[in-house]
Amino acid sequence: MSASLPGTRVGVWLIGARGSVATTVVAGCAALTAGLHPPIGLATETPVFAGSGLPPLASLVFGGHDTVDCPLPKRAEALAAGGVLPAGLPAAVRAELSAADREIRPGGPLTGDARGEEELIAAFAADIRDFVRRCRLARAVVVNLASTEPTAAGDALPPSSLYAAAALRAGCPYVNFTPSTGLHHPALTSAAAASGLPHAGRDGKTGQTLLRSVLGPMFTQRALAVRAWSGTNLLGGGDGASLADPAAAAAKNAGKERVLADTLGTTPEGEVHIDDVPALGDWKTAWDHIAFDGFLGTRMILQTIWQGCDSALAAPLVLDLARLTARAHEAGLTGPLGELAFYFKDPVGEAPAGLAEQYGALTGFAKRLRDVDAGEPERRSGTGEEER
Amino acid sequence: MSASLPGTRVGVWLIGARGSVATTVVAGCAALTAGLHPPIGLATETPVFAGSGLPPLASLVFGGHDTVDCPLPKRAEALAAGGVLPAGLPAAVRAELSAADREIRPGGPLTGDARGEEELIAAFAADIRDFVRRCRLARAVVVNLASTEPTAAGDALPPSSLYAAAALRAGCPYVNFTPSTGLHHPALTSAAAASGLPHAGRDGKTGQTLLRSVLGPMFTQRALAVRAWSGTNLLGGGDGASLADPAAAAAKNAGKERVLADTLGTTPEGEVHIDDVPALGDWKTAWDHIAFDGFLGTRMILQTIWQGCDSALAAPLVLDLARLTARAHEAGLTGPLGELAFYFKDPVGEAPAGLAEQYGALTGFAKRLRDVDAGEPERRSGTGEEER
Amino acid sequence: MSASLPGTRVGVWLIGARGSVATTVVAGCAALTAGLHPPIGLATETPVFAGSGLPPLASLVFGGHDTVDCPLPKRAEALAAGGVLPAGLPAAVRAELSAADREIRPGGPLTGDARGEEELIAAFAADIRDFVRRCRLARAVVVNLASTEPTAAGDALPPSSLYAAAALRAGCPYVNFTPSTGLHHPALTSAAAASGLPHAGRDGKTGQTLLRSVLGPMFTQRALAVRAWSGTNLLGGGDGASLADPAAAAAKNAGKERVLADTLGTTPEGEVHIDDVPALGDWKTAWDHIAFDGFLGTRMILQTIWQGCDSALAAPLVLDLARLTARAHEAGLTGPLGELAFYFKDPVGEAPAGLAEQYGALTGFAKRLRDVDAGEPERRSGTGEEER
Amino acid sequence: MSASLPGTRVGVWLIGARGSVATTVVAGCAALTAGLHPPIGLATETPVFAGSGLPPLASLVFGGHDTVDCPLPKRAEALAAGGVLPAGLPAAVRAELSAADREIRPGGPLTGDARGEEELIAAFAADIRDFVRRCRLARAVVVNLASTEPTAAGDALPPSSLYAAAALRAGCPYVNFTPSTGLHHPALTSAAAASGLPHAGRDGKTGQTLLRSVLGPMFTQRALAVRAWSGTNLLGGGDGASLADPAAAAAKNAGKERVLADTLGTTPEGEVHIDDVPALGDWKTAWDHIAFDGFLGTRMILQTIWQGCDSALAAPLVLDLARLTARAHEAGLTGPLGELAFYFKDPVGEAPAGLAEQYGALTGFAKRLRDVDAGEPERRSGTGEEER
Repeated sequence: MSASLPGTRVGVWLIGARGSVATTVVAGCAALTAGLHPPIGLATETPVFAGSGLPPLASLVFGGHDTVDCPLPKRAEALAAGGVLPAGLPAAVRAELSAADREIRPGGPLTGDARGEEELIAAFAADIRDFVRRCRLARAVVVNLASTEPTAAGDALPPSSLYAAAALRAGCPYVNFTPSTGLHHPALTSAAAASGLPHAGRDGKTGQTLLRSVLGPMFTQRALAVRAWSGTNLLGGGDGASLADPAAAAAKNAGKERVLADTLGTTPEGEVHIDDVPALGDWKTAWDHIAFDGFLGTRMILQTIWQGCDSALAAPLVLDLARLTARAHEAGLTGPLGELAFYFKDPVGEAPAGLAEQYGALTGFAKRLRDVDAGEPERRSGTGEEER
Repeated sequence: MSASLPGTRVGVWLIGARGSVATTVVAGCAALTAGLHPPIGLATETPVFAGSGLPPLASLVFGGHDTVDCPLPKRAEALAAGGVLPAGLPAAVRAELSAADREIRPGGPLTGDARGEEELIAAFAADIRDFVRRCRLARAVVVNLASTEPTAAGDALPPSSLYAAAALRAGCPYVNFTPSTGLHHPALTSAAAASGLPHAGRDGKTGQTLLRSVLGPMFTQRALAVRAWSGTNLLGGGDGASLADPAAAAAKNAGKERVLADTLGTTPEGEVHIDDVPALGDWKTAWDHIAFDGFLGTRMILQTIWQGCDSALAAPLVLDLARLTARAHEAGLTGPLGELAFYFKDPVGEAPAGLAEQYGALTGFAKRLRDVDAGEPERRSGTGEEER
Repeated sequence: MSASLPGTRVGVWLIGARGSVATTVVAGCAALTAGLHPPIGLATETPVFAGSGLPPLASLVFGGHDTVDCPLPKRAEALAAGGVLPAGLPAAVRAELSAADREIRPGGPLTGDARGEEELIAAFAADIRDFVRRCRLARAVVVNLASTEPTAAGDALPPSSLYAAAALRAGCPYVNFTPSTGLHHPALTSAAAASGLPHAGRDGKTGQTLLRSVLGPMFTQRALAVRAWSGTNLLGGGDGASLADPAAAAAKNAGKERVLADTLGTTPEGEVHIDDVPALGDWKTAWDHIAFDGFLGTRMILQTIWQGCDSALAAPLVLDLARLTARAHEAGLTGPLGELAFYFKDPVGEAPAGLAEQYGALTGFAKRLRDVDAGEPERRSGTGEEER
Repeated sequence: MSASLPGTRVGVWLIGARGSVATTVVAGCAALTAGLHPPIGLATETPVFAGSGLPPLASLVFGGHDTVDCPLPKRAEALAAGGVLPAGLPAAVRAELSAADREIRPGGPLTGDARGEEELIAAFAADIRDFVRRCRLARAVVVNLASTEPTAAGDALPPSSLYAAAALRAGCPYVNFTPSTGLHHPALTSAAAASGLPHAGRDGKTGQTLLRSVLGPMFTQRALAVRAWSGTNLLGGGDGASLADPAAAAAKNAGKERVLADTLGTTPEGEVHIDDVPALGDWKTAWDHIAFDGFLGTRMILQTIWQGCDSALAAPLVLDLARLTARAHEAGLTGPLGELAFYFKDPVGEAPAGLAEQYGALTGFAKRLRDVDAGEPERRSGTGEEER
C-alpha cells in the first residue's frame, strides 16, 4: 500500500496485469520507491521534469485486469529466475506485489463468456471505478499491456477496444502501449472526443524502432539514399508467441515501417521478421541491415544488433506514461497527447517522427506542465487537436 | 575548367590534393555538374539550402598542395579499380581532373627541405594567391585533407599549421577536415582572430563518430546508463597507414571520445582501436559495442557495424564545407563557424554535440545566409564568438 | 573454342546457361586458363588433386539450355557493372563468352509450349548429343544451375527433372547444383540406376550452410547444447526473386535444416528467412544467431554475418564438380557420388554432414581417382551404393 | 568430501584456486555429481569416452594454491550475483566449496617473500604431497589456472614455472590452462623429460580461438584466400585486467595467431586486441572480421560475434583435462599429450591445428585409453614423443 495520503494517490490500472511487463512495472516502482535501485530508464526522473508536478512514484497504486490467475509474487519469482528481475527483488517487494495482486480482476471475454460487448464494458468500467473508490485515489490511468491482438476484422470491438471503452466510461485517461486497436476503432471515435479525456499511444518504442527513429533522421540529414532496410527480431516469452501469429505481427510491423517512411520520406525495400524463439525467454535480439548509397552511388552498409530484455525496456516507459498522462488529466489536457510521441512507434496526434524532435516535444510538454496552474487548467492538448 | 564567369568562380585549395578524398572531391564535383550522378550525400543540395546563396558546384575551381606527384587522372583510375569511384567516371571527367592537376603545387616541408617556417608559409601563401589571380576567382577556401599528423610536441609549427597560417596570410577561409593541429596552435590564435576570416573544423565526422552522435543522445534522452563504449576501426588506404602511428591515432580518438563525453555527460569505459588493414583498401569497417544498463540494472548491449568507403563518405562533406565557408566569407562572417558542427568530430566554437541539434544549427545557418544582404555583411559568426 | 585436341575435350552443359552463375563459370574458366587470375576457390587446383587425372580447365567446352536470350558477353558486362566480375574481364574473354553463347539452345517448357514431357526430354537430349558431336567432346557433364523451382506437387515432372532425364538419355553424368527436384523424382529412380552414370547433388553449399557445416560439429564436439539457430538471408538478383516464392524457399531451407539436424543430432528452435532485396544485386548477406547453453546452463550466443557474392561463391564449385564428375565418368564410377558431399547442402548417397569429414571424403576421392586405371574402371561409387 | 573410497579418489590441485574458473570448476563438479545440472560442455561425459576408464566426477577432490584468501563459498556467491553461476547453486554445494577451501594453501612468491626459487618449489611440492596423503588420493593432477603472466624476461623462473617444477617434484601430471610459461622454460626441459609424467597445455581454447580453429580450415579447404583476420576481445573480470598488460596480452595473442598460421598456411594481415572492460564482469564479447578473396578476386567478408561467460566456457574443459590427464598417468603415458590439442590454443607435442582433426585425435585417445590394460601400461604418449 502506498504511503501517500488518500486523495493524492494515483491509480495505474493495467490491462494484462499479470504479464511480464506489468510485473516488472509493479516490482520496479516498489524498488525505486524503496531506494533499492537508481531510476534508470525513466525520463520523468531527470531534471527536465523537475517542477512539472508529476505524481511521485511513491503515490502510484496498481491494479488491473487479466485473464490468467498466477499471483504477482510468483510471477516475479519466475522473472527473477530468468534474469529479468534482480535475484533478490521479488522477496524485497513482496508486500507491494501482493497488494497489487489483490487489486487485479478477471478480464475477458473469457472462454465461453456469454456476455455481450456492452455488458463487458460495463463490468470493466465498474471494476475500475471500484478500484478508484476503494483505494481513495485522486484519479487512475488505464494502460493497455496485453498481448498484441491480430489486426481487427469486421465491426466487432476487439478486447483492447472493450477495455478502452471501459476507461472512457470510468472517466480515466487511456494509454495504449501495444499495437492493438484500443481507442483506434471507428465505433469509439466520438465517445473519445466527447469524453474530454487525454489519451496516448500506440505501441511502445522499446528497441529496434527506437534505433530506427534516430538512424532514419541521420540518413536523411546527411542526404544519404537508403535503398533497403531489413530486420529480424528474435524473442521468446509471451510476446514472441503472440507475434508468431502473422496477423499480430502485421499489426506490429506497420508501426515499425511508419517510422522509416516518416523519417526517410520514402519507403525502402526490406522486410521485418518477428520470430518466436522460446529459448530466449524474455530476451530479445533485433538485427537490422541497412543498405544505402553514398556519394556517386557507392554502396555502403550499416548493421545494428540490439540485445535487450523487453520487460526491462518497457517498464520504465510505462511508469513515465502513467505519470505524464495522470498529470495531463489533472491539468485538464484532453484528446491525443502528441507530445508523448517519444514513447511510441505509431504516435497519436500530430507528432514528429525523429527521436530528437520527439524529445524536444517532450521537454516542451514538461515545461507546459510546469506552467499550468492546476486550479485553472488548459482545456486541451496543444499539438494533438485532432486524431490523425 | 569551370563554365562560370570570371569573378563568380570560387576556388577550393586542397592540402593533400592528390589523396583519395581530394581526388574523389574533384571527380565527384565534375560528375555532379555534368549530371552523371544525383547529389547523394550533399546536404547543401537539399531544399534547406535553397536561396542561401551558396556558390553552385559548377563554379568551383580546384587546386592545392601535395608532396607526391601522381597525376589526378591516374589516381582516379586507381580509385576506380578499387571500387571507390564508378568504373567509367575517370574517363568521363578526365578534363576536369587534368585541369585541377595543373593547379597543384608541391607542398612541404619536403625531405631535406632547408626552408624555415616563415619561408614555407610565405611560399604556400604565394601559391594560393597565384591560384586566385590566375583563375580569376572571387575567393578561395583552403581545406586540409592531408594525412593525420602525430599529436604535436614542442613549439614548432607542424605542417598543418604552416598551411593554416598560409591560408590566413592569403586571406582565405580555412577548413580543417582532419584531426591535425591546423589553426589550433597557440602561435596562430591571435593571427586567426585578427584576420577576420571564418574558419571551420576539426576532423570530419564520416562514420563511427557520426553514429555516436545520434546514439549517444538516444541513451541520454532515454535515461539509460551507458557503462562501456568500445570500438574498433579497420581501414586500409593512406589513412589506415598514418593512423597506425599511435600518436596520430591518439589525435583521432580524442575527437571520438569528445562526442561520447559531450552527449552522455559522462565518459564510459572502453577503448577505440584503429587498425591499418591494407587489404581493405579505401573501405572501412567500424564495429562499436555499447554495454548499457536498463531498468533495475538489467544489462543490455547494442552493437553497430558500419561498412563504408571513406573517400565517398568524406567527399560530399568537403564540397558542402567549401561552399558553406565560401558563402560565409562572402557574407562577412568571421571566426569559428560553430554552426558547422554537424560536419565535425571536434567542432570549433560553441556547438551542441548531438547530431539532431547540430542539424538544427545547420538549418539555422542556412536561414541566416538567406537573410544576409551580401552588400551589408554581418560582422561575425553568431554562435562561435570565441574559440573553446 | 578450347585449345585442347578433339577427343580430349570435356563438355559442360549448363541448365540456366545465361544466368549469373553460368556466366561467371564461363568467364572465370577463360580467365584462369589465360592466367589472368589465380584459381582462388577451386579445391581441384590444390595439390590434393595432383595426379587425379581431372580434365584441365583449358579442356572444358561450355554450352547449355536457357529460356532467355540475352547474349553471354552482354550478361557479363552487366555483371561487371555490378562488381560481380572484374571490370576488364568481359572484354578480355569476349571470344570465349561468344563461343559458349553459340552453344546455348532454347530450354523449356516455354510459355504456350505444346510439347509433352517425352517430347521435351527427347529434344533436350538431342541438343546435348549434338553438342558432344559438333564439338568432338570426349564426354559432357550436365549441371543444373537454373532458378530454384517450387517444391513439386503432383506426378508431373518439373522442368529440372525433364533436363535430368535428358542427361540420362544422352548418356551424360548429372550434377544438381540447386535444390530443385532433378533426379530426385520417383519416376526417374530406375532410369538413373539403370544408366550406369555417376551423378551428384543437391544444392550447392556456398555460404550460410557452409558455415553451419563447420559450426554445427564444433558445438557437438564441445558438448554444448544449441537451443536455437535462427537465420536471415538477404539477397537480390534472380535468386532472391525466385526464393521470395515461399514454395521455392521451402525447398532451399530443407537443405539448410538438414545440415543442422545431421551435425547437431537434434533440431534446434529457430527459423530461416530468405528475403528478396533487389538493391543488393548479386550480393548476399546472411546473418545467423545461435543461442546455446554452456556449463551449468549458462546462456551464450554466437552470431555470424557472411557477406559474399553468390555467383563468385558458386562458380568455382561448379568448375570443381564438372571436372570431378567428368573424371568419375571416365573412371567408370556410377550412381550417387557421396564423396562430393563437401559441395552440397543435401548430399546424395551416404555422406557425413560435417565439413571436415566431407573434406576427408573428398581427399579420399582424389586418391581413389589417382589409383584408378582408366582402362580398367571401377564399376561404381564406393560410398554411394544406394540413394538415401 | 568425495563419496569415493580412499585410494580411488583423484586430486585436482588448482593453481589460482580462488579464481572465477577454479570456483566454477569446484561448484560445477559438485552440481553435476549431485545431478543438479546435465553435464553440458564436458566431452568426457559423451559416449565417446565410455569405457575409457576416466575417474568419475564424484571421485575428484579439489585443492590448490592461491595468493588471495577470499573463501570459495563467498567467491561463489559473488559469481552467482554476476550471473556466472546459477542463483541457488552456491547454497546447494556449500559443503563441497568449503571442503575444497580447506585444501587451499597460500601460493607465492608473496609480496616481500624472501624465499628463493628452490625454497618455493620445495614448499609447493610439500603442499601437494600433503594433499595427496591427507586425502588418501590415488594420484593428483596439477592444473594452472592463475592469471596470465607477462612474457618472461631473463633467466629467473616465473611463478608459473615454480609451480610446474613443484608438480614434477611431487610426481604429479601437469596441465597448463594459461599462456604462461609453466613447463615451457629451458630450465625445466630435462626435469620434465626425466620425470616420466604426462603433461598437457597450453592456453585453453574457449571462444574466439575455438572458432578460428574451425573457420581457418574451412577457408583452406575451400581454397579461399584470407587477406586479413582482425579481432577484438572485450572482457572484464580478473582476466581482462591482467591482459590489459601488453606483455600478458602478447603471450595470449601468440597462441591465437599460431592457430591462424597453422590452419591457413599463411599469416594474414590483422591485429587482435584484448580490452579490459570491467563493466562486462566475467562476460566476454569477441568480434572477428575476416576479409577474404573469392573467385576472380571478389572481396568478401565474414564476421563473428561470440558472447560467452569465460568461466563457464573454461570450467568443463578443466574437468575434462583433469580426468584425461589423471587417466593418462594411471595408464603410464608420459611426456606431452598432443592428443589433447582439442583443448588448447598452443598445444604441446605433435598436433593438428584444425578442430576436426584435433577431435579425431581426441577420440583416438579415448580408444587408446580403452585399450590400455592398467596393469601393463604403455610407456609414453604416442603422438607427443618430443616437445616441439
